[in-house]
Amino acid sequence: MNKRLSKIRASLKRRKIDALLVSQPDNRRYLSGYSGSDHGISESAGFLLIPAKGEPHLLTDSRFKLQAEKESANFVITLYPGGLLKLLEKLLPSLGIKKLAFESHYTLYSTALALEKMAAKINIKIVGLKGLVENFRARKTADEISLIQRSVALNEDVFQEVYKQLHPGITEIKLAGIIENLMIDKGAEQPSFSTIVASGPNAAQPHAVPSHRPLREGETLIIDMGLVLDGYCSDMTRTIILGRPDKKSVDLFRLVRKAQLAGIAAIKDGVIAAHVDLAARKIINDAGYGDYFGHGLGHGVGLAVHEAPSLSSRNRKKLRAGMVVTVEPGIYIPDWGGIRLENMVVVKKNGIKNLNKDMTFLDI
Amino acid sequence: MNKRLSKIRASLKRRKIDALLVSQPDNRRYLSGYSGSDHGISESAGFLLIPAKGEPHLLTDSRFKLQAEKESANFVITLYPGGLLKLLEKLLPSLGIKKLAFESHYTLYSTALALEKMAAKINIKIVGLKGLVENFRARKTADEISLIQRSVALNEDVFQEVYKQLHPGITEIKLAGIIENLMIDKGAEQPSFSTIVASGPNAAQPHAVPSHRPLREGETLIIDMGLVLDGYCSDMTRTIILGRPDKKSVDLFRLVRKAQLAGIAAIKDGVIAAHVDLAARKIINDAGYGDYFGHGLGHGVGLAVHEAPSLSSRNRKKLRAGMVVTVEPGIYIPDWGGIRLENMVVVKKNGIKNLNKDMTFLDI
Repeated sequence: MNKRLSKIRASLKRRKIDALLVSQPDNRRYLSGYSGSDHGISESAGFLLIPAKGEPHLLTDSRFKLQAEKESANFVITLYPGGLLKLLEKLLPSLGIKKLAFESHYTLYSTALALEKMAAKINIKIVGLKGLVENFRARKTADEISLIQRSVALNEDVFQEVYKQLHPGITEIKLAGIIENLMIDKGAEQPSFSTIVASGPNAAQPHAVPSHRPLREGETLIIDMGLVLDGYCSDMTRTIILGRPDKKSVDLFRLVRKAQLAGIAAIKDGVIAAHVDLAARKIINDAGYGDYFGHGLGHGVGLAVHEAPSLSSRNRKKLRAGMVVTVEPGIYIPDWGGIRLENMVVVKKNGIKNLNKDMTFLDI
Repeated sequence: MNKRLSKIRASLKRRKIDALLVSQPDNRRYLSGYSGSDHGISESAGFLLIPAKGEPHLLTDSRFKLQAEKESANFVITLYPGGLLKLLEKLLPSLGIKKLAFESHYTLYSTALALEKMAAKINIKIVGLKGLVENFRARKTADEISLIQRSVALNEDVFQEVYKQLHPGITEIKLAGIIENLMIDKGAEQPSFSTIVASGPNAAQPHAVPSHRPLREGETLIIDMGLVLDGYCSDMTRTIILGRPDKKSVDLFRLVRKAQLAGIAAIKDGVIAAHVDLAARKIINDAGYGDYFGHGLGHGVGLAVHEAPSLSSRNRKKLRAGMVVTVEPGIYIPDWGGIRLENMVVVKKNGIKNLNKDMTFLDI
């Protein structure tokens, strides 16, 4: 934690900013260890105030006091019974803060306006800052990679146990429930996102919500699942066909797998993110299915299941060693179904390290 | 839906606004039926563009196309492969929109700045608007109240089934899993929030996250649970003591129940929300436990599990017939435990209608 705070402090000093107000929950946890859970962006479980010099503060309300004290012993913990702004109005001058940055990409417009108004009253400058903590978070330390590796291994464990029991007739929503239950039984904090189980035509929706539709033989079945272990996320997708797959399924499956391997092969330190997306997309485009692969190739994973860097055709930034990304091409055909395969890899100097061991995509 | 759209359109016309961009997911569903699920505020499943005159539009990306078409047949559905702003830059002028409102309480500061920049380029005025759709949503129609009643009934059904099986030794997290599974088995879309199961000292945290701690006899056990059925939420809290409760538990339990009944008795059309909070709080204050009741008395429930109106000491607005609120006083004592009781009621002209039938709080 202390190393992380030092980096933020140094960055604030370089920018001549006296303190950063952290509102993004994963950034909050990254810097303080505090894992209080927000109910959406409008009901925050707390904020960090990180001065460039001096002690870091955790600001929260009485509901979270005990948890904050337990998890963030190095922080000064202050409650705001009258709301955040009333507290800041007193706290900022008392800490000698003249210029405060807030996270513009995780602060509501109405909140930012209220913050500006309060700051004007006490003669403090306010600046929006985007992605400062996220940029540090994108490159993982060896310790973080071990934690992610454990999260991936547990997730595969759950998948394998469920995979053995798969049978036609069970509904998507029931299967999703079994998966999420097993995650908790095996010690996960929670699923890292709502598990996707999409069968038959439902699999044509990349973000399908599990329905009461029963699984049937011969159809594509997409299972996209992940969990949180010690704060770190995993994320994996497999496509399964119960019974005998037809030729179309086998051909498309192989095509998606080929695209995934091409994407993975393109990854190394220094490569532009968009080029990785393109390497996988080219395989699918060349086979004539480009219109059926509508989303980006992948995304960073860490404390958040979706974080920097994005592997999309619009991201011109370079990948760096220590980043952890998913590679998940897909083909979705309305009224037929879909195929998506998703693995996680660590970006290394000359290539990647695979985080997945599961090879279920080779079984058809 | 059409009545709802008419109200919004009339309101826009009165304000001389040409269109409203809806980003808040529950508002989106309320007006369009579209239930696409966002991954946090930064990864939206789509936006509505509601012109004061002319057809309503649903803007989304390819992942959600099929779902949008199925759920929102009356909307013009347009995809934004290049992102929302690029689409708006073309769409707004083509619809003759000169002044656009956005939801300032559900738009990120950085997004609002980008929106303003784009609008300046095409000579369109932008205004932030707060709570327009939420205000309509706060007062429910008879149809909506029936849906909420069904959600509450199913939630009580789940609770009763779980209550019968409660025994010392089972862990909080296991119990939470059983509850959420049963919700799905019985036909719920999903839990309306992460189920809280907090036992012993954990119950002193109003927003405790279920842990691997096993339930024990004689301790307070708080179960706070709710589900979503046909889009509408339920929310209920019960406090249970396995085995023989001691005198302190019984006394505090009765005190919280008395405060709850006092709060409920204070509710009717025209009453200021803060007065209802005060009516319940006075009971707890007078008994000397005011410092141990740190949160507001309740909140509205509908498509969102937390929505307007808030029953807090800071809300000076009047309650109106048709609003649905929770009444949930609590007492939380560090190192000991906590007691919270939560029911849902409909505000009526001369009082309330109870939505809960469960009377488990009378059993000790």
